[in-house]
Amino acid sequence: MAGGKGERFWPLSTSEHPKQMLALVGDRPLITLAVERLDGLVPVEDIVVVTSAALVQATLEALPGLPPENVVGEPFGRDTAAACALALALVKARDPEAAFCILTADHIMGELDVFRSTLRQGFALALARPVLITIGIPPTFPSTGFGYIEAGDRVEAEGDVEFFDALRFVEKPDTQKAATYLETGRFYWNAGMFIWSVPTLESALQAHCPQLRQMCDRLLPTVGTPELMPALDAEYSKLEKISVDYALMEKAENIVMAKGVFPWDDVGSWLALENHFEGDASGNIVVGSCESIDSGGNIVMSNERLTALVGVRDLVVVQAKGATLVCRKDRSQDVKKLVKLLGEKGEYGSVL
Amino acid sequence: MAGGKGERFWPLSTSEHPKQMLALVGDRPLITLAVERLDGLVPVEDIVVVTSAALVQATLEALPGLPPENVVGEPFGRDTAAACALALALVKARDPEAAFCILTADHIMGELDVFRSTLRQGFALALARPVLITIGIPPTFPSTGFGYIEAGDRVEAEGDVEFFDALRFVEKPDTQKAATYLETGRFYWNAGMFIWSVPTLESALQAHCPQLRQMCDRLLPTVGTPELMPALDAEYSKLEKISVDYALMEKAENIVMAKGVFPWDDVGSWLALENHFEGDASGNIVVGSCESIDSGGNIVMSNERLTALVGVRDLVVVQAKGATLVCRKDRSQDVKKLVKLLGEKGEYGSVL
Repeated sequence: MAGGKGERFWPLSTSEHPKQMLALVGDRPLITLAVERLDGLVPVEDIVVVTSAALVQATLEALPGLPPENVVGEPFGRDTAAACALALALVKARDPEAAFCILTADHIMGELDVFRSTLRQGFALALARPVLITIGIPPTFPSTGFGYIEAGDRVEAEGDVEFFDALRFVEKPDTQKAATYLETGRFYWNAGMFIWSVPTLESALQAHCPQLRQMCDRLLPTVGTPELMPALDAEYSKLEKISVDYALMEKAENIVMAKGVFPWDDVGSWLALENHFEGDASGNIVVGSCESIDSGGNIVMSNERLTALVGVRDLVVVQAKGATLVCRKDRSQDVKKLVKLLGEKGEYGSVL
Repeated sequence: MAGGKGERFWPLSTSEHPKQMLALVGDRPLITLAVERLDGLVPVEDIVVVTSAALVQATLEALPGLPPENVVGEPFGRDTAAACALALALVKARDPEAAFCILTADHIMGELDVFRSTLRQGFALALARPVLITIGIPPTFPSTGFGYIEAGDRVEAEGDVEFFDALRFVEKPDTQKAATYLETGRFYWNAGMFIWSVPTLESALQAHCPQLRQMCDRLLPTVGTPELMPALDAEYSKLEKISVDYALMEKAENIVMAKGVFPWDDVGSWLALENHFEGDASGNIVVGSCESIDSGGNIVMSNERLTALVGVRDLVVVQAKGATLVCRKDRSQDVKKLVKLLGEKGEYGSVL
């Protein structure tokens, strides 16, 4: 999945360069890293990218090794449930018995051997048993920015990856709840990564959102033909926006959680960069050109222009593409609101 | 006097566009307003501008009505005492008995009739008696950003402008002293504006800084000839930097203060803009393009790009000329330090 509207990392991210296209860490776009991460596990011809129609070209440029027909553009965003059903059709056309995983293009991960091992053992389990597997990350702090999965009994499986019954999915908690979740040791971050087989996902869609199952069936014969795009257009225009968590995972009973013990972050806002960069002597995280006096704890991205700070603390300052954001660090989740506001004003198209 | 290095209003002000060249208030440069302010009092051919050599061309462009020979460029800055001695030569060449005033090109004033009346009556007094007149502004708040003049007995003079013996000049006080000054009612802001006659200033320089008197004498025959610039070069290279306050006004006994009851500000830093602009509904002062969420009390100048604020208070944000300043409002006097730092780094020439 490589959709996204480029709101949370504005002004660096824009509708034409959403988060997955940015080199937020390292020197290559997140989507490039996301595909490289599967090296040795999934052959590149079996990696399919679902993105928005407007981003197909840019996605292909970021993924020069991928067969062009493996990048499919959605005519409009219909959230993750629709994207998963589309992916199901795309995979089933290749192999109707396949196990496959849904990953997102804008996460940051480490210890990739562990990550790949988790997927490999997840594929084996998904082929062996009719379960929907979701990856849960052991929380390292009481985050209010992620949803959680409550894990139950251990599920037996080959290998070193631990699998558990997933008892329930819970939405982003408040601070107190998040702290409780952390204490119990039973709650895991919902990383939004899924592993399942074609038949198991088909059955689950049939049971919980039959209209998506039907869409998948209707799309299947068009995969690999010029009919796919018009068919997608017709199907998507009938859909409501709904996430795969709401539409499926919170309803299904046969959910298993794979414990993902690799470093993981979905880098939800500018604030999250603190986890991925070392600060300078003053505790400022600086990418680009910045000079400061008596300023600390700031996150600065300023590749095209100079940013100069005097006496300021705990700000996010980002200069990119004709705009500059100055945001209190603990308000960086509200950048999304700001982008909405700018969109409503109707005069900032050039920077959105 | 229209020198200045463009430090305090960086990044809008630069060495090529120092403060007096900026349209900080209104839509024309401060220097243009400064000359227009004399309309009806001093004929334009009698207005002489002393600036830095590098700024002569820009000054002429800002003052299209001025005879080009009336703009004289100093080869290097030697502070205000040298500029006053140079002005003395330039005026004496026109009229050895003239009264004249020294004004600065970067102040903001109101009630211009009152201002002109103050000058007019000051000229009369300067011609009638051998006194050095300085203009003092009744303080409206305990400013620590201005020097002060302590006023003594009233001096008799024609007209409605009040003149006092100037007892002493005091440097920028700390907060407590400033409060005391305000309470006494005897202390006035030193506005750095002077009125004197050629003979009186000559005598005063002779007494307190004879090297400047001699420089004036040597420059006099070169005024209006191509010899002026090489002569200035030779003279200035021998001078130390010293302000007219230190060199003359603090030493002379025959100082009279004219009480300037017109609105006046020298706009010493970005913070001072609060006195000259109305805030918007959130209390932000905005010039240019700015959108904000939950942000107030900020001063934003953003003519070329969009500035977007989220959750920030009491900041100065200025985007201009390839750089962006983010400064706590109460630290805006330190912008000068920042510019010094940038200069020392040696890699920011394009934005200084």
